[in-house]
Amino acid sequence: MADAAYNDKYPSLMIAHDALEGLQNSMDKYPLWDATVKANIKEISDVIKDSIEVPIPKDMAGGYTHTRHKNNYLNAQKAAVLYQITQEEPYAIYVRDMLLEYAKIYKDLPLHPEPRSYARGKLFWQCLNDANWLVYMSQAYDAIHSYLTPQEISILEKHLFVPMADFLSLETPQFFNRIHNHSTWGNVAVGMIGLAMDNQELIDRALYGMEIDSTTIGQKDNDGGFIRTADQKAGFLANLEEPFSPDGYYTEGPYYQRYAMYPFLVFAQGLQNKRPDLKIFEYKDSVLLKAVDALLQLTDSDGDFFPINDGQKGMSYYSRELVSAVNIAYYYGSRNPSLVDLAIKQGQVQLDQTGLAVAQAAANGNVKPFEKRSLMLRDGSQGDEGGLAVIRSDRQDLELLFKFTGQGLSHGHYDKLSYSLYQDGHEVIPDYGLARFVNVEQKNGGGYLKENKTWAKQTVAHNTLVQDEKSHFDGDYETGAAHHSQLEFYDFAFAKAKIVQATEQNAYPGTSMNRTIAMLQVPGVDHDVVVDILKINSNESHQYDLPLYYQGQILQVNQKVKKGNELKPLGTQNGYQHLWKSGVATANSDNTTLNWLDAYKRFYTATMATSQGDQLIFVDLGANDPFNNLKTQPGVIQRKSTTKEAVFAMAIEAHGSYDPVSELSSGAYGSLSNLEIVSSNEDYIGLVLTTKKGIMQMLIVTLRDHEKDTDHDMTINNKNYKWTGPYWYGQIN
Amino acid sequence: MADAAYNDKYPSLMIAHDALEGLQNSMDKYPLWDATVKANIKEISDVIKDSIEVPIPKDMAGGYTHTRHKNNYLNAQKAAVLYQITQEEPYAIYVRDMLLEYAKIYKDLPLHPEPRSYARGKLFWQCLNDANWLVYMSQAYDAIHSYLTPQEISILEKHLFVPMADFLSLETPQFFNRIHNHSTWGNVAVGMIGLAMDNQELIDRALYGMEIDSTTIGQKDNDGGFIRTADQKAGFLANLEEPFSPDGYYTEGPYYQRYAMYPFLVFAQGLQNKRPDLKIFEYKDSVLLKAVDALLQLTDSDGDFFPINDGQKGMSYYSRELVSAVNIAYYYGSRNPSLVDLAIKQGQVQLDQTGLAVAQAAANGNVKPFEKRSLMLRDGSQGDEGGLAVIRSDRQDLELLFKFTGQGLSHGHYDKLSYSLYQDGHEVIPDYGLARFVNVEQKNGGGYLKENKTWAKQTVAHNTLVQDEKSHFDGDYETGAAHHSQLEFYDFAFAKAKIVQATEQNAYPGTSMNRTIAMLQVPGVDHDVVVDILKINSNESHQYDLPLYYQGQILQVNQKVKKGNELKPLGTQNGYQHLWKSGVATANSDNTTLNWLDAYKRFYTATMATSQGDQLIFVDLGANDPFNNLKTQPGVIQRKSTTKEAVFAMAIEAHGSYDPVSELSSGAYGSLSNLEIVSSNEDYIGLVLTTKKGIMQMLIVTLRDHEKDTDHDMTINNKNYKWTGPYWYGQIN
Ligand SMILES: [Ca+2]
Ligand SMILES: [Ca+2]
Ligand SMILES: [Ca+2]
Ligand SMILES: [Mg+2]
Ligand SMILES: [Mg+2]
Ligand SMILES: [Mg+2]
Ligand SMILES: [Mg+2]
Repeated sequence: MADAAYNDKYPSLMIAHDALEGLQNSMDKYPLWDATVKANIKEISDVIKDSIEVPIPKDMAGGYTHTRHKNNYLNAQKAAVLYQITQEEPYAIYVRDMLLEYAKIYKDLPLHPEPRSYARGKLFWQCLNDANWLVYMSQAYDAIHSYLTPQEISILEKHLFVPMADFLSLETPQFFNRIHNHSTWGNVAVGMIGLAMDNQELIDRALYGMEIDSTTIGQKDNDGGFIRTADQKAGFLANLEEPFSPDGYYTEGPYYQRYAMYPFLVFAQGLQNKRPDLKIFEYKDSVLLKAVDALLQLTDSDGDFFPINDGQKGMSYYSRELVSAVNIAYYYGSRNPSLVDLAIKQGQVQLDQTGLAVAQAAANGNVKPFEKRSLMLRDGSQGDEGGLAVIRSDRQDLELLFKFTGQGLSHGHYDKLSYSLYQDGHEVIPDYGLARFVNVEQKNGGGYLKENKTWAKQTVAHNTLVQDEKSHFDGDYETGAAHHSQLEFYDFAFAKAKIVQATEQNAYPGTSMNRTIAMLQVPGVDHDVVVDILKINSNESHQYDLPLYYQGQILQVNQKVKKGNELKPLGTQNGYQHLWKSGVATANSDNTTLNWLDAYKRFYTATMATSQGDQLIFVDLGANDPFNNLKTQPGVIQRKSTTKEAVFAMAIEAHGSYDPVSELSSGAYGSLSNLEIVSSNEDYIGLVLTTKKGIMQMLIVTLRDHEKDTDHDMTINNKNYKWTGPYWYGQIN
Repeated sequence: MADAAYNDKYPSLMIAHDALEGLQNSMDKYPLWDATVKANIKEISDVIKDSIEVPIPKDMAGGYTHTRHKNNYLNAQKAAVLYQITQEEPYAIYVRDMLLEYAKIYKDLPLHPEPRSYARGKLFWQCLNDANWLVYMSQAYDAIHSYLTPQEISILEKHLFVPMADFLSLETPQFFNRIHNHSTWGNVAVGMIGLAMDNQELIDRALYGMEIDSTTIGQKDNDGGFIRTADQKAGFLANLEEPFSPDGYYTEGPYYQRYAMYPFLVFAQGLQNKRPDLKIFEYKDSVLLKAVDALLQLTDSDGDFFPINDGQKGMSYYSRELVSAVNIAYYYGSRNPSLVDLAIKQGQVQLDQTGLAVAQAAANGNVKPFEKRSLMLRDGSQGDEGGLAVIRSDRQDLELLFKFTGQGLSHGHYDKLSYSLYQDGHEVIPDYGLARFVNVEQKNGGGYLKENKTWAKQTVAHNTLVQDEKSHFDGDYETGAAHHSQLEFYDFAFAKAKIVQATEQNAYPGTSMNRTIAMLQVPGVDHDVVVDILKINSNESHQYDLPLYYQGQILQVNQKVKKGNELKPLGTQNGYQHLWKSGVATANSDNTTLNWLDAYKRFYTATMATSQGDQLIFVDLGANDPFNNLKTQPGVIQRKSTTKEAVFAMAIEAHGSYDPVSELSSGAYGSLSNLEIVSSNEDYIGLVLTTKKGIMQMLIVTLRDHEKDTDHDMTINNKNYKWTGPYWYGQIN
């Protein structure tokens, strides 16, 4: 495949040689392009005035040497691109000199002194960051290649790039030869430098993995993830094959998908430029392009990724990885004008032919609003391992994420059938996310905190069922990884009822869980009503806890809440040890309602169809937290004791707001006067919502036979209902 | 004084008759004016389509009848103004018909059924709201007066306005005849309708109060405020005289000043139009105009009032009262173009000649940026009862409010020498504000909560000294009202050190407190350092607690914090019963540092010059709160036990930020390596700040002899310092 003319065609990796002339004559035409180039020139022209610094590696994430090496690769990549666009030598000199500095020290570097990673790097504490360095530096190298002398090229390749590529693969197979985002970075680092050097051996190693390595089946990394399983595949193509579902969902979740997309996409772009025969963007039915769409849809309305699994809140489609993703998907995809809308929001483009094309489209008004939709994303490489549903309201900026995926590799949480709810880009019913402060050195050097395992991953940290105060799969990763939840049915076709049902049979052996989540329009009510029905059947009696975490301050509870004069943790393990028990109420009526106000001055109400004797346990996160690693988070747990079968039913409304300037409340109360399970058997659940105006709406969901064309016929309260399909919803009075 | 031609000259109260022609030919020239008129037309043209509803009063604040009557007067006032501007009859008809409906029911109305106010109203649960109604309705009546028949005028005056004016004054002297914002509303209500009706008796009653009333000296209202003191003055002029300081500070604080300014200013405008001989805007050296400036300066950088005393957070200069205030101050003041800048931010103007003038200035570009400054506002009608200082940084958007006022009438808190700190309009070191959800019916009908007294007013709720776990003046209002703190010196002239010192001798008999707060520039440090030195001398040994409330999550403490497995309240009374004791550290080094991150991803550090054995008690607000009335609020209390003399010294830095999108920390740590009291005697305190780069800065403050021209000479650590004036600040190495 090697082409003898390669050296004449530099740059070739990201910036296509053919595109050079266009890029060099691109200024003062396309505002988005100009803005990006000028911002980069402003930033980098300052940077290259400072002396180059390549310190001996010492610090953890957030510390000085870590940040320096990270800034070095980010700056070098930008400078190299600016060299190609402006043809101004100082940019090339800066990159050349920096790379030569690295070449001086690299071969003699020992492993990084910080020993805590399963795969220690040399420049950074973990190989992952070294791979990041190489992915960016490969681009920098490629872009200044034409400026280098043959001797400089030889020094860099022999003393820096080949040794680093070998270190990241041959010398650390536990890092390179996995199905994991770490390995993707490793594969791409090796592949990118392979492409830049035209080194077929490295390219093949990147694409297909190493055939033999020294890892052992069953070995795990320091996050508890498998390093090697039986029949394990490896390499870039395997990492593209396995973790991505046919819908483009990446099994680790959007936070890591965002992180992984950058290497996937830049390597794809490099391959497309240098190995178009591979048709990488068409691979697996264009999964890379689908993945960009999936990722963009897995954001709240201000662009923040839903923080499921180990996701840090606040990461969004404004990240540099998504700028790149949007541009690449536009250019190598169908030139979708709604991606241009996002690029305009992002305010910058990737500095190559992809970004130029986006900026041209923006300048030409070839733009359509980017629209969010309700969607189903299947999980699993074949799309048959559960999934993720996003339900969006047509009348409010209300977004609900329902998760019934597989485990999600080592960054997955024990959160089967959990959900989270967002309004106007703010959390209403939050997912806790991770217990980590990425790159905040004060907190364990920016690494995962112990509480990620003791709290964030545990089931009780999520809005889903906990049986007998134990986490799903007893918190065992291997068991969790062997199973997945199951989609039963979904229907998003009608604004008046968007509905999903999923089941989980394995989280608690002998217990089956069926959860239906719907967003309903109710006559006479101007906002949607989120309905949540969770039915549990077990072959033995258990205690069932259903936590509901909320943001804000409870204003009113329609039950007497007993709050004691001291606080104790709710339990001793599985996350319960981190919850202060702040109050308890015993349900003495059919409905329990909570009304609260959040920091954005919105009013919410949860109406729970509690049964006599159910407990409502009010909790505050923060117990057993010696280093103050946990965030504050209030919640309420519905508890049903010693029962085989149970149905939890709840309605959640986002119904009003308070204006602290006019000091007026509007819509301070929910619309429902009653919520009642009127029927529950093996085949159906019937739920009636009654509004304060007296309207009664029934939702009947099927628990079996969900086909679209199946006819159903049932009688509830002496009234007969006949319908076709998985659910019936309508007024009954 | 009455002018026989009055009836021909309507409108006359707010809209000057002379201005009518200009107002009626004002459209399509001045965008701000157009925007306001159009927004009002859009709102009110919908409103007047609905049928008029004047329900029999029943509900508390936030409830239906309360909100209806409130909307009625707001809508009627707007409609009446639109009638004058557009000359369209439906607006006048709406107001006329509504007023006639009120006239039908008013005379037979009993007191409002809710008995909890010391001065129950008829339309609302308290006279205060009835007075609001009349202040707005007087304007509405005046503006449609020319549309009414003599018979209608007679009905309205006899059956509605005179009875209501008499009810609010003669029949409720405990409401009308006080020095209090309630009385201001009462006075203005009576005065406005008096002006509108040309009723001299009512005008005089409003201006000068009632000579004889049935209240008793020492009687108090339901907030604990005095209704009548010996030698009490009353009426509008007395209410303008007493609570306003010569600097325009209103002793209740900005939240109530905002509320009171509206009646003060609209009545002043009415008087200026109908009784220009009174020269009301020049009264007390133009105190009304100074008050508008003071109020605008008492806001954080996004316009929110500093929430001292009973202030609800989020109230801001965007409120309708401040739109009115800015416009009136512009028109009747010096036509200050920086007020036009604020009006543009507010996005609306008052619909009369004042707002038209502002909109014209905006359209003509007669605008200067509104600038915040460091300022001193004296308290007390003579300006000799302590005060309030706002220190603003020249390099950061950092604002510090230091409070050493008098008690502030019944809405005052026991917070002598307390301070709060803001960055970019967000709280860093917050003042708790009040314990109330104004107009949120779920919370005690929107009224004050019990926790306002048990927590919000108590000293421990503030960032100031608590002796022996008791509040200042033992929480006794009468004692507090008899005293005030004392300004010692201030100097805001130099950016490198802005400094204030104040003392309090009476909060704890036998104990004197001297607090110096400074905002310092330190060489080599790019942000300011806030320094806080609190020196206490007592004739007996006491326990001294200095709380520091912060917003966010503590990342690091340089001491071992013991956190137990259960939480108990820190005390049993005076606010301590509401604090969970979440951890404790014992100072074992000279400095204790806390590093935290807030919700806006800013890093802060507090460096405390603790002494061996000092305790640091970590607290979380929320204990003994059965109805969940308290907000979450973390804090740390420095405790010094059994000592007569003590010096607390602390430095606070706002030094960096975290970006969750790039995941980069910048400026994660503070700049100081040491903070030390190197000298403390009766005359001076010397504090040395040492930076991590090794720079040592000394601040010496005088404790006596603060005159600008006093020469000082002292020796610290064998080095002699000579200077003139109240402090010395400079590098010493
Ligand atoms: Ca968001
Ligand atoms: Ca808490
Ligand atoms: Ca603010
Ligand atoms: Mg989670
Ligand atoms: Mg999760
Ligand atoms: Mg206060
Ligand atoms: Mg206060």
